[in-house]
Amino acid sequence: MSHDSSSRTCLAIILAAGEGTRMRSDKPKVMHEIAGRPMLGHVLSAVQAAGATRIAVVVGPDRADVAEATRAFAPDCVIFEQRERLGTAHAVLAARDALEAPADDVIIAFADTPLIDAQTFARLRAPLGDGAAMAVLGFDAFDPTGYGRLIVENGNLRAIREEKDASIEEKPISLCNAGLMAFRGDTVLGLLDAIGNDNAKGEYYLTDAVALATARKQTIAIVRAPERIVQGVNDRAQLAAAEAVMQERLRLQAMAGGATLIDPASVHLSADTVIGRDVVIEPNVFFGPGVSVGDNAVIHAFSHIEGTQIGAGAQIGPFARLRPGTRLAEKVKVGNFVEIKKAQVGPGAKVNHLSYIGDAQIGARANIGAGTITCNYDGFDKHLTRIGEGAFIGSNSALVAPVTIGEGAYVGSGSVVTQDVPDDALAIARGRQFSRAGWASAFRARKTGKPEG
Amino acid sequence: MSHDSSSRTCLAIILAAGEGTRMRSDKPKVMHEIAGRPMLGHVLSAVQAAGATRIAVVVGPDRADVAEATRAFAPDCVIFEQRERLGTAHAVLAARDALEAPADDVIIAFADTPLIDAQTFARLRAPLGDGAAMAVLGFDAFDPTGYGRLIVENGNLRAIREEKDASIEEKPISLCNAGLMAFRGDTVLGLLDAIGNDNAKGEYYLTDAVALATARKQTIAIVRAPERIVQGVNDRAQLAAAEAVMQERLRLQAMAGGATLIDPASVHLSADTVIGRDVVIEPNVFFGPGVSVGDNAVIHAFSHIEGTQIGAGAQIGPFARLRPGTRLAEKVKVGNFVEIKKAQVGPGAKVNHLSYIGDAQIGARANIGAGTITCNYDGFDKHLTRIGEGAFIGSNSALVAPVTIGEGAYVGSGSVVTQDVPDDALAIARGRQFSRAGWASAFRARKTGKPEG
Amino acid sequence: MSHDSSSRTCLAIILAAGEGTRMRSDKPKVMHEIAGRPMLGHVLSAVQAAGATRIAVVVGPDRADVAEATRAFAPDCVIFEQRERLGTAHAVLAARDALEAPADDVIIAFADTPLIDAQTFARLRAPLGDGAAMAVLGFDAFDPTGYGRLIVENGNLRAIREEKDASIEEKPISLCNAGLMAFRGDTVLGLLDAIGNDNAKGEYYLTDAVALATARKQTIAIVRAPERIVQGVNDRAQLAAAEAVMQERLRLQAMAGGATLIDPASVHLSADTVIGRDVVIEPNVFFGPGVSVGDNAVIHAFSHIEGTQIGAGAQIGPFARLRPGTRLAEKVKVGNFVEIKKAQVGPGAKVNHLSYIGDAQIGARANIGAGTITCNYDGFDKHLTRIGEGAFIGSNSALVAPVTIGEGAYVGSGSVVTQDVPDDALAIARGRQFSRAGWASAFRARKTGKPEG
Repeated sequence: MSHDSSSRTCLAIILAAGEGTRMRSDKPKVMHEIAGRPMLGHVLSAVQAAGATRIAVVVGPDRADVAEATRAFAPDCVIFEQRERLGTAHAVLAARDALEAPADDVIIAFADTPLIDAQTFARLRAPLGDGAAMAVLGFDAFDPTGYGRLIVENGNLRAIREEKDASIEEKPISLCNAGLMAFRGDTVLGLLDAIGNDNAKGEYYLTDAVALATARKQTIAIVRAPERIVQGVNDRAQLAAAEAVMQERLRLQAMAGGATLIDPASVHLSADTVIGRDVVIEPNVFFGPGVSVGDNAVIHAFSHIEGTQIGAGAQIGPFARLRPGTRLAEKVKVGNFVEIKKAQVGPGAKVNHLSYIGDAQIGARANIGAGTITCNYDGFDKHLTRIGEGAFIGSNSALVAPVTIGEGAYVGSGSVVTQDVPDDALAIARGRQFSRAGWASAFRARKTGKPEG
Repeated sequence: MSHDSSSRTCLAIILAAGEGTRMRSDKPKVMHEIAGRPMLGHVLSAVQAAGATRIAVVVGPDRADVAEATRAFAPDCVIFEQRERLGTAHAVLAARDALEAPADDVIIAFADTPLIDAQTFARLRAPLGDGAAMAVLGFDAFDPTGYGRLIVENGNLRAIREEKDASIEEKPISLCNAGLMAFRGDTVLGLLDAIGNDNAKGEYYLTDAVALATARKQTIAIVRAPERIVQGVNDRAQLAAAEAVMQERLRLQAMAGGATLIDPASVHLSADTVIGRDVVIEPNVFFGPGVSVGDNAVIHAFSHIEGTQIGAGAQIGPFARLRPGTRLAEKVKVGNFVEIKKAQVGPGAKVNHLSYIGDAQIGARANIGAGTITCNYDGFDKHLTRIGEGAFIGSNSALVAPVTIGEGAYVGSGSVVTQDVPDDALAIARGRQFSRAGWASAFRARKTGKPEG
Repeated sequence: MSHDSSSRTCLAIILAAGEGTRMRSDKPKVMHEIAGRPMLGHVLSAVQAAGATRIAVVVGPDRADVAEATRAFAPDCVIFEQRERLGTAHAVLAARDALEAPADDVIIAFADTPLIDAQTFARLRAPLGDGAAMAVLGFDAFDPTGYGRLIVENGNLRAIREEKDASIEEKPISLCNAGLMAFRGDTVLGLLDAIGNDNAKGEYYLTDAVALATARKQTIAIVRAPERIVQGVNDRAQLAAAEAVMQERLRLQAMAGGATLIDPASVHLSADTVIGRDVVIEPNVFFGPGVSVGDNAVIHAFSHIEGTQIGAGAQIGPFARLRPGTRLAEKVKVGNFVEIKKAQVGPGAKVNHLSYIGDAQIGARANIGAGTITCNYDGFDKHLTRIGEGAFIGSNSALVAPVTIGEGAYVGSGSVVTQDVPDDALAIARGRQFSRAGWASAFRARKTGKPEG
């Protein structure tokens, strides 16, 4: 999906080299996740959807992990390493090779502002097609203190004024610099190479491009975005805040598509969750990555679902745990305290209570009794369990894989099934019952020291 | 419970014919649920509690499902069908037969404003007893844009001014029309029949009754309600918003009654949930319809409860799933990963871990071990399990119903019980244990290709 | 941890005698819990951390339960009984014996304002060291109506003006009296004994000390605190509000320490919860008292944890229930629908599905199959299960304690183990499997009355 209908080529440079010390983490900041996807992945997805034809990612030294994650979301991107941290403009110029190849538009994005969506990136590009040399993303700050103010003349940006340099008249300006910029490809290097480091920290600041472009009488456009989506993530509390904004966005999408979320704030969605029409989702449901839910399905409370396809009209939970590799056909029922992993379940089959189904194929309309466990692991290998259409597995049974239960077969409750069961057969594998009259009262008398009766 | 102490008769006409296309649902809008009850059901309950002596519901064409739901909440109500959609006044007049029978008061309510409570309906009726011909429900809008403004003179309503007709002076008026009205029975038909359709859409608008009554010099009272309870539901996000308001109301009621809700926002209540005094409810508990909780009970986190009576001093969860037809006596303990369905559990009995109890009677002080499963289903029929007072069911047992475990009887762990167990007897039904020395190390050597030791 | 570096001695008097009728509870108000700790306990912890060297608690008549809870948090404190309820100053003077022993500072705190932290108490003491006779805690009220206004002159408190006595000029003052005070030890009794009861209710009010000290030309300092932390708890809704503030405080601490809380609002922490660095906590996790989580652990959604040590790199849940006495070594995995109680689990051991482990020792790298149950209870006593390093327990097994599974031993799926298993041996204890061909189709024909095939 491209939000940019133009045929202009676009290079996106994503700065992902920040150290993120305030995260207090051994993991690179841009690898922390929002809605089940690294922040970097959100930015990569957004710029691609905004029409980026090439992507360059600037990472810190020795960040093979970031490079690998990058390729997962943008296989053709080029990775550059910023060896020293000498400011944002210096970071962009680490991707000089990418900048020297021709592109109509160049977007500069930050891997730690994960909420900026494709539409915003596309809007940032738009003025370049209309002749602007640069476009700067601004936002109306609730409290502008500390942000660079955007000084506007005739609808175009004249300057970015840092807090310390702002005059009394400029301080109340609420339109602030979000940091993101786009450049016309034929002017970007000219501006970046002109940026100096004659300042307190001796760093090269991307924002200086504005003054340079102004001096060159180039047009600088302003594109506005809501404050809440331009926020960067620098610590865990900001990570949680960004997650909350992203979740609200995903929940509204699900509801607009015709799903009922009884308590939306308690439903955790992943960036790629697909929810059908007339789906009902009770409170407290967790969707990890890779889940799709068919129309009219009901997801009861306290369900935890990852990597699973749920068919139309299925009923899941409460207390269901569906793990990657699960495919549930239409009208399947999965009840409480049931875990399913890497299994296909045919139409109308039921696994209603207290079961573990792993590495299995279950036929249509099969009924898996309470407490059924597929013993799929022998300590070294995983083995497959096949259950035929219409089979009935009695409660509290263990199916020792590899094993096949035939179509229409019946397994007696409490059985440990180690051999295949033919179609339509009964299999029983359990001990015989015997009783000892009066044993329990004698036992109690022994335990309590008091004879009964 | 009636909020109207007068002896005046009252007809409530409930408009339930809206299509609700913005819900994007195959289900009629008024059937979508809030707090476990269809929106229509909330309105029916409220008007009854406000003293409605007759109820007429106007439904869309061929809505047998709405009619059926209506009767579930108001068995004696009369259903009318609105065949064409020609405006609110036209909808009301679909119930002409009901209007022609005498009633002191007539309330017009909407099935998609589920938050208006009995007290508000009763307050809306009150001015009629004091001589007003009509009463209109108003609210102070946070942002009045788009709402009809209520023009007041001497405390009575003079006109409803639609947004497009409002003057500069009228636009800032924040008192707006909520849509609900009440009429004196002897004037209602005279007003409704006079409403015309000389407007852009050619529809008959109920609000035109105000101008007509004013022209007739009849008194029109205004009754105010908070904005948040007059909101209608038109899409899934509004449905979730209404649910949130209703939940907050129910939670405050529970707390006022002496229950501790550690995190109220995480507790989902149904409209009919009954919570006793000194009950403690941990975070994340879901109460479906039909639940009562006795005094001093504790409901631990992550419990999902529907159609269940919980006795005083009981301890439930965490991770308990109680389904309809469950009756727990005082001081019963139901622990984690336990499902109980259609079962009676006697005083002080315990089902603490990983069990499925369905179609069962459990005597006082019985102890049901971890992993116990009542095998109540044979693929066709459900069968009953009886467990006597003081019986002890060893862990991981399967009780194949129909079966009776006697009072004080003892079932050994891991048994599959298929025959009745006499009182005070011991029953064991499992395989004998045998060992093969060194088998495991040989198995590992075979699997890894490396001999051990 | 002391927030007071001075060497001044400090007596804290905690008023805990309130009846709390609006709680509608049989439990004394100050015993209601916040973050898993009685409100009284929070106040006791805070004054100790603020450097209180002696603590006196004033309880209502016959409140042995409150006295006992007090000693749990402050073993050396002295309990005083207030026999009649004659006002706050009367309550303080119930601790006259404590006041007569020398102390540099005296703090008066209320057991039903549980959010005031050690720093605030320490700030309240600070002016006494600088020569003030008294210090009064104030807050800027969002709506001051009903509160006593603090009348300030030259930075010191001149008077507390009650709502009814406030002049037109004084009414808009938003700085209000929070109730807490500190006194210099050498002046406190002189002030308290001078307080009279010449007022409508005939009670002795602590606030009158301000007028007395002013008359004596003593300096009264004001210390400010945020409104939300000075709120008292008088009913269940206020209890829930205080819980919410405390939870937010604890969550921010956990995030500042380097933990990711995906949805902080859904994580319930206890006052003593310890969370390591780079821990990830999914939504909907409940931490009861006594939990520590090592670095890099992951706590999946829907976990309920109390009294448990979780080692570094462990993976817990979803749907795990860890109960008191559980110690999990590093890299342990506890999966879904697993309950562990009073058990030690060695490094790298796995209990992944549907198991109950109680009263057990599990060796390193042991693998406990799905559906394993330790049968630890015989109806009278609890018994121990020992599982050796590297042992493999096949799925759906019952281990009847006391029993020992040797190192490297292998238990076949579905076994009921009643005898010890030697190291490296295989143990199997289950019935043999047999089949009856065609039984299932005959059964269905009998049930449905229709022959198959």
